Order: sequence, then structure tokens, then C-alpha cells
Amino acid sequence: MSRQDCERADRDDPLAGFRSRFSLPEGVIYLDGNSLGALPVATAERIAKTVSDEWGQALIRAWNSHDWVNQPGRVGDKLARLLGAAAGEIIVADSTSLNLFKLLSALLTRPLNADRNVILSERGNFPTDLYIAQGLNHLLGGRFELKLVEGDPSDALDRSIAVAIITQVDYRSGRLLDMAALNARAREVGASIIWDLSHSGGAVPVQLGEDGAEYAVGCGYKYLNGGPGAPAFLYVRSDRQASTRQPLTGWFGHAAPFDFATDYRPAAGIDQMLVGTPSVLASTALECGVDLMLQADMSVLRAKSVALTERFIQLVGSRCAGHGFELASPREYSQRGSQVSFRHEHAWPIMQALIERGVIGDFRKPDYVRFGFAPLYVRHVDVWDAVESLKNIMDSGAWREARFQKLNAVT
Amino acid sequence: MSRQDCERADRDDPLAGFRSRFSLPEGVIYLDGNSLGALPVATAERIAKTVSDEWGQALIRAWNSHDWVNQPGRVGDKLARLLGAAAGEIIVADSTSLNLFKLLSALLTRPLNADRNVILSERGNFPTDLYIAQGLNHLLGGRFELKLVEGDPSDALDRSIAVAIITQVDYRSGRLLDMAALNARAREVGASIIWDLSHSGGAVPVQLGEDGAEYAVGCGYKYLNGGPGAPAFLYVRSDRQASTRQPLTGWFGHAAPFDFATDYRPAAGIDQMLVGTPSVLASTALECGVDLMLQADMSVLRAKSVALTERFIQLVGSRCAGHGFELASPREYSQRGSQVSFRHEHAWPIMQALIERGVIGDFRKPDYVRFGFAPLYVRHVDVWDAVESLKNIMDSGAWREARFQKLNAVT
Repeated sequence: MSRQDCERADRDDPLAGFRSRFSLPEGVIYLDGNSLGALPVATAERIAKTVSDEWGQALIRAWNSHDWVNQPGRVGDKLARLLGAAAGEIIVADSTSLNLFKLLSALLTRPLNADRNVILSERGNFPTDLYIAQGLNHLLGGRFELKLVEGDPSDALDRSIAVAIITQVDYRSGRLLDMAALNARAREVGASIIWDLSHSGGAVPVQLGEDGAEYAVGCGYKYLNGGPGAPAFLYVRSDRQASTRQPLTGWFGHAAPFDFATDYRPAAGIDQMLVGTPSVLASTALECGVDLMLQADMSVLRAKSVALTERFIQLVGSRCAGHGFELASPREYSQRGSQVSFRHEHAWPIMQALIERGVIGDFRKPDYVRFGFAPLYVRHVDVWDAVESLKNIMDSGAWREARFQKLNAVT
Repeated sequence: MSRQDCERADRDDPLAGFRSRFSLPEGVIYLDGNSLGALPVATAERIAKTVSDEWGQALIRAWNSHDWVNQPGRVGDKLARLLGAAAGEIIVADSTSLNLFKLLSALLTRPLNADRNVILSERGNFPTDLYIAQGLNHLLGGRFELKLVEGDPSDALDRSIAVAIITQVDYRSGRLLDMAALNARAREVGASIIWDLSHSGGAVPVQLGEDGAEYAVGCGYKYLNGGPGAPAFLYVRSDRQASTRQPLTGWFGHAAPFDFATDYRPAAGIDQMLVGTPSVLASTALECGVDLMLQADMSVLRAKSVALTERFIQLVGSRCAGHGFELASPREYSQRGSQVSFRHEHAWPIMQALIERGVIGDFRKPDYVRFGFAPLYVRHVDVWDAVESLKNIMDSGAWREARFQKLNAVT
């Protein structure tokens, strides 16, 4: 495999035209779109318009004249197209953590058999999911046991499970779980699964309806390119909405918020998952990211994602052989999302050295270097060049001189 | 009183220079800054820079290089200067509803005597505050009684009260409560007050520390001019922070979020009130609004606010006499925030007719017309012209032809 092969693959890439739809910095190979997605060109213009024309000129009237009031559901419906859900099943709101709290509390406060008292998750799950379960369980008097398993949680899905919080693509390893199989298993034992799609949406094909998912949350600022701290999303299958009542009962989730009634009455559909007044600027940026993503064919995107991650794994294996990198992601592409991680005892300075050279991935404790491949803007030559940088850093020992940087990258 | 008097007052206005710092539409008198504050000129430029330079160019590195990671506390510290709190006592996060949930649940899950089982609020409080109390109480098994009183809640503050949720400036009438007196009363009976400052911050002088407040929440998109759905704020007095633990335990509230530890450990200070990844775009707009507000002297701002509301009340009384407007705000200025409401049986079409003529206030059920006077950009002549519009609509009966508009104004 040569750089010329990569150039050829880029010429043949049906998604090649998407790269110019992003504002990418010069001299940077950005392999961290799984942490913060890149800026779509259209977003800057759209945000400026929302600020100056909608907020500035229409002022309060924009809630109606520019339909701000329906934005959470409108963007949710667009996400539903992306994620294989129906209109009215997804809404954009708050953060992933808060959306998980809403669903988890709704599910744990339903009538449950006394012996169905376990919240299941994975020890390696993204910590905020575990923290939310801990905080809620404490608030509920510690009635539940939080059971954390290693690896595929399928075997642990039994009749003791009230709710399983399962992340489809692991944030550290990129491991991809079989959603349909896990949902089938959950149905057998009467457990509910809340899927965390933070590293799936826009990265791998997701078919919530077809694969039998009932509940999900996910992040807007990764592959969806919704901007830093973008609103998150929340999915409840339509037949579960009437029985799913969340306790963060703010006025935007009211059946008639503008009646200013004294008593809370939940909205009938997915709107009940709203709480306070949503940020229009943040939601607008997310909408731009989703609009762009919807123009790509998801199966084409997946094919490119697989090609990029395969190429990366092969090249690190051949070009950086003997330098001590141990693949931490599944070798089998069907079990992998759009990211690849390696373990290395010097992972931290190695990643710092890469970043100094304009190859941006990230470090995850204790010893992971992690690389995300967002197929809309990462090229095959980027893979080649990133691996060459890595090879140079390792061959020369330059990683030993990497400057210390504050460890505050936001996944 | 004549329009010339108003022009003279504008020439003598020490805050007159602030108006040009806002992008206001031509031909509009905006008396709804209590609902959605106007756009500061600096905000549009700052947001464009954040989008294009920070997100677009620095990408994930901006969490450190542009200090996104400390933004919630940084903006909180600025608000602390505005609201008479100390640095480290206020943080910017989520929505007012969610911040109230955090504080209320923290306070209700402390050890409490069995006979201290009442959540006190006002029947006329902004509904989301009541809804949040209802949702939380339901989640806690209905252990508390939500007691709603009419008018000043001081008399109802007794030893049965666990927590009182008190809004300093009423959203509908503009009534301003005496924070120091209520806090003193609460101390006597051992109750905690959570202040809702949504209609106070930037509208009236607030001295949280001096007036003995322990807990507060408030809105960023009204007088603080933080943009539609701006992040809200949350205040916990420093000596109460160690004992105030909220249950929405997301990773941004962790003592060491980037350790990715399995177990939640709350941050020591006000940071524990963070949940998920904050929206940088939304927080940046709020920061611009707060920066601008901090350049005004709050006592000068209050003096102008009083002058504007006094003038409005007097002019409606004299110019619209006999048209059936009944003042719904306190006549005594010391008991009034920066807004004025009247009741009228045809409030709804009257407000529609005003809006059609470019005088933007709003309608509140059942029969209120409400006018906010943001002293940074509302002039004395605006008061005159607004009342003249109102007089014309009433004298001519033009309000009878007001077009129907969807009732979705966001307070």
C-alpha cells in the first residue's frame, strides 16, 4: 500500500465532495471528529443569520415567525430519518447526561417486580452514564443495584435487570454492539435497554425501529457536527411514549406551556422530554450538522468508514511495526465503529507529539491513543499521512520531547 | 408631561450611550426585553469568531486554548459581580428549570424533621417553578406538600417549610419582594429559600450576599441579553456548597472529569452543579450580554428603570383614561421591578394591535398586557410613543381588527 493508492481511493470516493463543505484548518489532519465534529461551512452563515436577523430583528416574535418553538421536534424528526426512527420519536434537548436521567428515572419508577432491581451497564461505559445512574439511584434511596460488567453485556441480561444502559459504540475502543440481538435478548427477559448512541449517530448505520430499540439518547457534537456542547437527542419509540413520564417537568414539556396553568400536565408525545427553554443558537448549529449529514448515503458512509479504519489498522501494523502499539479496537470491521484505538505505554507523550505535528487524535486513560475517522471530511491520504507522522515520531524518538499539555480534551 | 419632556430626559440620560450597543430593528419600540433581551452589537461578532476561529480552526483544542472548559465558572463569576455574590458562588448551566431541580432536590434530600415537609411557593409564580417542584415531589414518593399562597409569601414562612421557591420579581405583575426581609424570616424558622431571579438579574439591584441569600437560580435570556434559550445561572453561597449535593450527576460536575473514573465524586465547589457538556455557543452569547451589563452602574440603571415605569404608568393613566386599563403592577415603585402590567378585558387583541404597530410587549393569560423596560436600550420617548400608540388603538377602536396570531410568546 502506498500514498498513491490512497490518492486513487480519494479520487474514487463518492463522498469526496463533502470535504469542501467543512471549514477545516490548514495543515491539520483531524482525527478527532468523534470528540468534536468539524465546522460545516453552512453553519457559520446560518448562525450569523439566526443571531442578526432572527434574534436581532424579529426578537421575541421569532419564536413564531422563525418557528423556534418547534425546533427541538423539527431537528428531532431529521435525526429520526438518520437513525431509522419515525417522525415524532426523537427530540433534541439538553445534554446526553440529562436525557439519560430522564429516561432512566422514567423507567425505574414504573411498577417493577421487587426482584427486578438491577441497573446494568458496562464498566468501560462512558463515565457520565454511570454517574447519572449513581446519582439517580441515590435519589431513589438506593433501591437499585448498579451492576457493571466487562465487555458485551448480553450474557448479563437476565430477569433481574430493570434497565440496561448500553453504549452501541464504545468511546474508547470503538467496539460496536449488535443492537438487534441485544434488543431481542432484552425482550426475552423483560428488561429495558436505553441505548447511548453518542458514538454511533452519523458514524454507523443505526436502525432504531427495525432493530427493536425502545429508548435511546445520544450526543450532538461528535459525528453530527453540531458544535461544542451541542444539544443532545432522545428517542422513545412511539408505543412507549404514553407510559414514559420523566420527572424533570419543566414548562416546555407541558401539554400547553402557554396556558401558564398551575399544574403540570405532560405533553402527549416526545415533547414531554423537553424541560426548560431550549437554546436556539445551539440547536441551530446542530440542525446544520444534521442537514449536511442527511445528504450522505449512510451505507456509502459506512463503507468509507470501514475502508479508512481498515487502512489505518493495516498501516500502523506495517509502518509502525515493532514500536509497541497494541490494537485496542476489534480487528473485525463489523464489530467496529468509526474509530480506532491502540494501547501503548507511552500513549500520552506520543499523542502530544502527534498533535504538535498537526495530527489531532486524543489520549484516553490509562494508555490509549484514539483516532476517529469522520468519513465526510477525512481522506484516505490523511490516513497515510497520519501514520507517516506516527512512524516518524516513533522512529526518531521525538515523542520523548513532547511538551506537556493540560489534559482536558472533551470526548 | 409632553414628548419634549421625554426628549429632554433622554438627552440627560447617563445610560443613553448604551442604546447604540444593541442591534435594534427599525420602527419597533421593544418593550419585551423581560421576555427576550435584545441583541448586543458585540455578540454577533463574538459568536462569528467563536464559530469560525475557535470551533472551526482550533477544533477540540479550543477546550484548552480558548478556555471553553472554564467558561461556565468564568461567566458565573461575572454574574456574581452583577448580583452581589462572591467569585465561585455562581455558575452558568442548563436551564432555570433544571437548575431549580438541582437545588430543590439537594435541599429536600438533606436530613429534615418529619414535620418540616412543605415546599412553599406562590400560586402566581412562573409555572415552570411549580412544575419542577411537582415532578421532583412525585419522584420522591410525594413526601412533601406543595403549598401555594397568594401574594407575599412572608406570612407563610413557618417551621413546616422545608424549602420556599420565591421569585423576586413576579413575571406577570412585576411585583418586587424584599429579599433581605424574607431571608431573615426564613432564618428565624429554619427554612431555606431558593430565589428565582429570572426577572431580577440586570433589572433591579440584587445583593445576594448582603441580603443573606443562600440559593438562587435565574434566566440568561431576559435582561441579561444572553440570546434565545441562553443558559441559566445557579447560585449557592460558599458556606453551603459542601453540603449541597445535587443528583443530576454528570461528568462535568465530577471532581476530576478527565480521569474517566467509574465512580462519581462531586467537584468541591460550584462546579458540582454542572451536568453534561455545556454549549459553548450559547454560553458565549450570554457572556457578551453580561459583559455589556457590567459596564452599567446598577444604581443608575435602577433609577432609569423607575423613571421609565413611573412615566409609563402616569401616561397610561392620563392619556388612556376611561379605556378600562387597570394597573396590575404595584403603584409604589420600590415594590416594582422593571416591568408594568395592566389588566384589560380585551388584553389579547389590544396587544396584537400594538404589536402590529411595532410596539412589542406581550399578553399574559388571562387578561394582562405586559410591558418591560430594559433601561439599557429603552428611551423615554419610547414610553411616550408606546402610550400614544395605545391611545390611538383605543380611541379609534382599531384593536377590534387585530389579526389573530399564534399564542406562543416565550416569557
